[in-house]
Amino acid sequence: MSSPIAPRETEVDVLIIGAGPAGVMCANALAMAGVNVRIIDQRSAPSSPAQPLKVAAGQADGIQPRTIEVLQSYGLAERLLREGNQMQMAAFYNPSPSGGIERTSRAPDVTAPNARWPFEVTLHQGAIEAIFLDSMKAHGVAVERPIIPTSLELSKSEDELRDPNAHPVKVTLKYLDPPAGQSDTEIVNAKFVLGADGAHSWVRKTLGITMDGEQTDYIWGVIDIDPDSDFPDVRCKTAVHSHNGSCMIIPREGDLIRLYIQLADRDVLDPATGRVDKSRVTPEKLLAVAKESFKPFSMGAKDGFEWWTLYIIGQRVASRFSLNERVFIAGDACHTHSPKAGQGMNASMNDTHNLAWKLTHVLRGWADISVLKTYEFERRKYAQDLIDFDKKFSKLFSGKPRTEDNQDGVSHEEFLEAFQTFGLFTSGIGVHYQPSAITHAQHQALAPALVIGERMVPHVFVRAADARPYDIQDVLPADTRFKILVFTGVITDAVHAARAAALAEEMNAPGSFYHRFGHGDPARVFDVLSISAAKKEDVNYTDLPKFFRQHWSKVLLDDTDLYARVGGGGYERYGIDAAKGAIVVVRPDGYVGTVAPLDGLRDVDAYFSAFMAA
Amino acid sequence: MSSPIAPRETEVDVLIIGAGPAGVMCANALAMAGVNVRIIDQRSAPSSPAQPLKVAAGQADGIQPRTIEVLQSYGLAERLLREGNQMQMAAFYNPSPSGGIERTSRAPDVTAPNARWPFEVTLHQGAIEAIFLDSMKAHGVAVERPIIPTSLELSKSEDELRDPNAHPVKVTLKYLDPPAGQSDTEIVNAKFVLGADGAHSWVRKTLGITMDGEQTDYIWGVIDIDPDSDFPDVRCKTAVHSHNGSCMIIPREGDLIRLYIQLADRDVLDPATGRVDKSRVTPEKLLAVAKESFKPFSMGAKDGFEWWTLYIIGQRVASRFSLNERVFIAGDACHTHSPKAGQGMNASMNDTHNLAWKLTHVLRGWADISVLKTYEFERRKYAQDLIDFDKKFSKLFSGKPRTEDNQDGVSHEEFLEAFQTFGLFTSGIGVHYQPSAITHAQHQALAPALVIGERMVPHVFVRAADARPYDIQDVLPADTRFKILVFTGVITDAVHAARAAALAEEMNAPGSFYHRFGHGDPARVFDVLSISAAKKEDVNYTDLPKFFRQHWSKVLLDDTDLYARVGGGGYERYGIDAAKGAIVVVRPDGYVGTVAPLDGLRDVDAYFSAFMAA
Repeated sequence: MSSPIAPRETEVDVLIIGAGPAGVMCANALAMAGVNVRIIDQRSAPSSPAQPLKVAAGQADGIQPRTIEVLQSYGLAERLLREGNQMQMAAFYNPSPSGGIERTSRAPDVTAPNARWPFEVTLHQGAIEAIFLDSMKAHGVAVERPIIPTSLELSKSEDELRDPNAHPVKVTLKYLDPPAGQSDTEIVNAKFVLGADGAHSWVRKTLGITMDGEQTDYIWGVIDIDPDSDFPDVRCKTAVHSHNGSCMIIPREGDLIRLYIQLADRDVLDPATGRVDKSRVTPEKLLAVAKESFKPFSMGAKDGFEWWTLYIIGQRVASRFSLNERVFIAGDACHTHSPKAGQGMNASMNDTHNLAWKLTHVLRGWADISVLKTYEFERRKYAQDLIDFDKKFSKLFSGKPRTEDNQDGVSHEEFLEAFQTFGLFTSGIGVHYQPSAITHAQHQALAPALVIGERMVPHVFVRAADARPYDIQDVLPADTRFKILVFTGVITDAVHAARAAALAEEMNAPGSFYHRFGHGDPARVFDVLSISAAKKEDVNYTDLPKFFRQHWSKVLLDDTDLYARVGGGGYERYGIDAAKGAIVVVRPDGYVGTVAPLDGLRDVDAYFSAFMAA
Repeated sequence: MSSPIAPRETEVDVLIIGAGPAGVMCANALAMAGVNVRIIDQRSAPSSPAQPLKVAAGQADGIQPRTIEVLQSYGLAERLLREGNQMQMAAFYNPSPSGGIERTSRAPDVTAPNARWPFEVTLHQGAIEAIFLDSMKAHGVAVERPIIPTSLELSKSEDELRDPNAHPVKVTLKYLDPPAGQSDTEIVNAKFVLGADGAHSWVRKTLGITMDGEQTDYIWGVIDIDPDSDFPDVRCKTAVHSHNGSCMIIPREGDLIRLYIQLADRDVLDPATGRVDKSRVTPEKLLAVAKESFKPFSMGAKDGFEWWTLYIIGQRVASRFSLNERVFIAGDACHTHSPKAGQGMNASMNDTHNLAWKLTHVLRGWADISVLKTYEFERRKYAQDLIDFDKKFSKLFSGKPRTEDNQDGVSHEEFLEAFQTFGLFTSGIGVHYQPSAITHAQHQALAPALVIGERMVPHVFVRAADARPYDIQDVLPADTRFKILVFTGVITDAVHAARAAALAEEMNAPGSFYHRFGHGDPARVFDVLSISAAKKEDVNYTDLPKFFRQHWSKVLLDDTDLYARVGGGGYERYGIDAAKGAIVVVRPDGYVGTVAPLDGLRDVDAYFSAFMAA
């Protein structure tokens, strides 16, 4: 003991180590679910606006379209969209025949065809973390700091490891600034521990998990400036290929921009370690390199440098994401890649968005503990795919432009195609979880555009009771419930109505998943909504079987709003035949879990039986 | 003096008496503008959720479409839209041949064709006031309470009354709960005073202003309930005409609804005064009347009565709205009308939205004090029109339904037409201010759909610099500045570009209004934006003359966003010919002040010369 006062020994359900994007996403999700959670961080203050980008290599610039959707599912997107810059347009510059650069084209920044918000939001990390910290506060959870973990032990007892109510993880914490008269040491006995402690993760090292992959040869400088420039695309995501090297502009909140500047000189590396050495360069020198690449346009900094850094791209994935599904790692602790991919913060937050509901279900006794295996299964594959993409893109972006003299260079067409393919992937919209206990690919043909394993496709439907239009995603919040979407067909048709009535009766019977896995309060576990192909003028919400209108807001119609501004065509968009209908199960994280026919409730029962506890 | 301690004597620029909707709208607008303002109220606490509807007769249910736009112009609509219920659909019920009632039709609740938010928001008054109180707090202003005014004197000196820097109004305040050791009396010397103190306004009575108009014979009961009902339109604004009398449903936040119930019995009136007497009825009795009207549907209350009242419609307008443009009255202090018009809160807030920028300009020395005469001119006419409409509508709504036996009754077609005409008016969208010093009807043909004297029509344009779509209203915030919108035509056309360059030079010349009335910092008085008819792929914001891009965000294009989801067709919608272009001046409150041709800057100069101080 480093203190003469006896250390406290405590218990907690979930202990989160690290309050960066992965940590606060998890802490907030668990806090909103009412889970007993604590979160510690070694920093004495959160990332502040004054230090907007105290980011390790691999952290990101912006919030991608899927991440905006995820924030919305927790009720947090509104503030992000208000405070951040929206990066809508991309511009591409290449060498001009007369020397210098010229614009080759402009294009949408985001190419994912069904993104609800088809753009990236750029905002400094402190402001993004603040959104989560404020939400956590409203749910009674604050980050405890400055605290570091000093030891971590996992019980070897198989019985303990299998028992979701056991506390098999013992973590010793050291308070760097303990209150007077209190020990600086605490021993926490946790049911689960999450290491969200960054690229140099102490948790990962303590677990002995290796990082697979390599460092690249690409060296980049980054400067944040308020530009003094006549460059017309200073507010676009602009990729510049010049004979002097490559640059990228990421416009930020207010008038700031971030410039990524490729460095050809390897003299910024420490010859002994091969690592970048910031003392070997200055932001002025980085700007001077950029100035050359932007010619004939001017590029200066109005008020000096808000922030700058230097990095060499590393592309690595952790070999494992957990130890016995009791200690997990997430975020930069498990993957590092190019900042230009704009993925660091997004991959990190989506890691723990994936994990949080699973922990909640296990802790509540709703799901078998084995469901936690799907975290590594789903998120490690994503991280690997991301790095494969990143390798290709980094090579293209860092490559010399193709010219008459350099036919081996990168052509604009080649780059643009990669930009768009990569964009679909990095937007997060294209993320596809493979079949597992919680992702059962069956009856896909009933709703071909609602791909099992992908996130629910946004579309506007209207509520039957009041004709208010709602994006379907907004009736599928991240509230830990499974959503049972019943596409009833044309509810005003007598045959379809009879079919819906029969299904309601079957779903409400004692043997159905709804009651078997409902733990005495099925509406807390499952939210049942119906979506009818019928017109708002004709349908009364009271026409639906009572089971499908446990609240008046649960009855939706595939129709336009009263002014034909939004909505309509949802069945067609999802590929659902109104004559057949479909049951679509959406996971608590917004991903399609499975699909079944209206007369195939047994398949829904089987889906839930695979991982839920009765 | 009622206290032995000497009263304080203080000075303030604006003193607001009453913290209801009119008062807090004014206080917030002035606080945001940095005006020296105080606001007092006799209540010791604001309207609370527990007393959601402590409303006098004439106060309202909801926030109308134009009022949502006004809140948005102060940055306050987001919270309103999140917290409130959105009333989108209206339903109409009439006697059915088989007895009871049946639905005749459903229709949009709001018929104003270009409303940005084509619905009403219903939310209890305490929550709406809280939005303003929180915003005021962020700008350093809080309501002082409980305080009442006990005397008000206006100087008779013509010199003082003409001098905007004089403090000609002396108000004595009495603190109902003074801090210990402090006098309960304060003498406030104010430049301007606003009486926003409700239907029984002390300020109005003190000024000796009469209310013109009359009381009707229509007696209504109101109950707020969580309905236990099989009525399918319980979440719509529903007008029921039955042989038992008329009812109206206004759905509210959560599951609450408000029921307006027509009473045929005059025995709820006090025979001595002719006023309604709440002791002569109970909410249970009101519900019993409603139950009869809703047959064959059921209508009960799940948890008793949230709130209830009884009223007789009064339709009155104050004979004057101010005394020497030094003391003003606003809101219910100047007009009372039917609650079913849903206007109380809206008319009140729009009164002071109209007044606040004028006070600010006069106090800053930007506008001649005579501009304050336009407050009564504009708002009294609106109040009179409102009451004329209300009379017609109340009569129709309270009238017996037309049937075979009663051919003199009100037909559904007649009622629906009135509902829609009235809706355009009550939505606030149709408000049209007549010509005055600040509303100069000229060159209307250059932009026929931007009606001079009406609010700026919302439409989405994209910013040239980043292709981000913006509703034009969002670049015209209520920030006290006049907005100069220059519709340049096709800026990529050399002739149009030359024309824009000439105009920029002329507008930036020392003799132009921009510098003559710019008070040394013209960007604080005027915000200049350009809107070009050209495509985002082709235009650089740097193509515009520097005067038209004082910030990169000031250059807009009439084009779709990058996904063709929104925007485009703005010139056509506004009726502006790209070959001609136009200058459109928008007042700080969002109303079109005047229109001029691109080569007619002298007309813009003349417009501002009529009321601005050099």
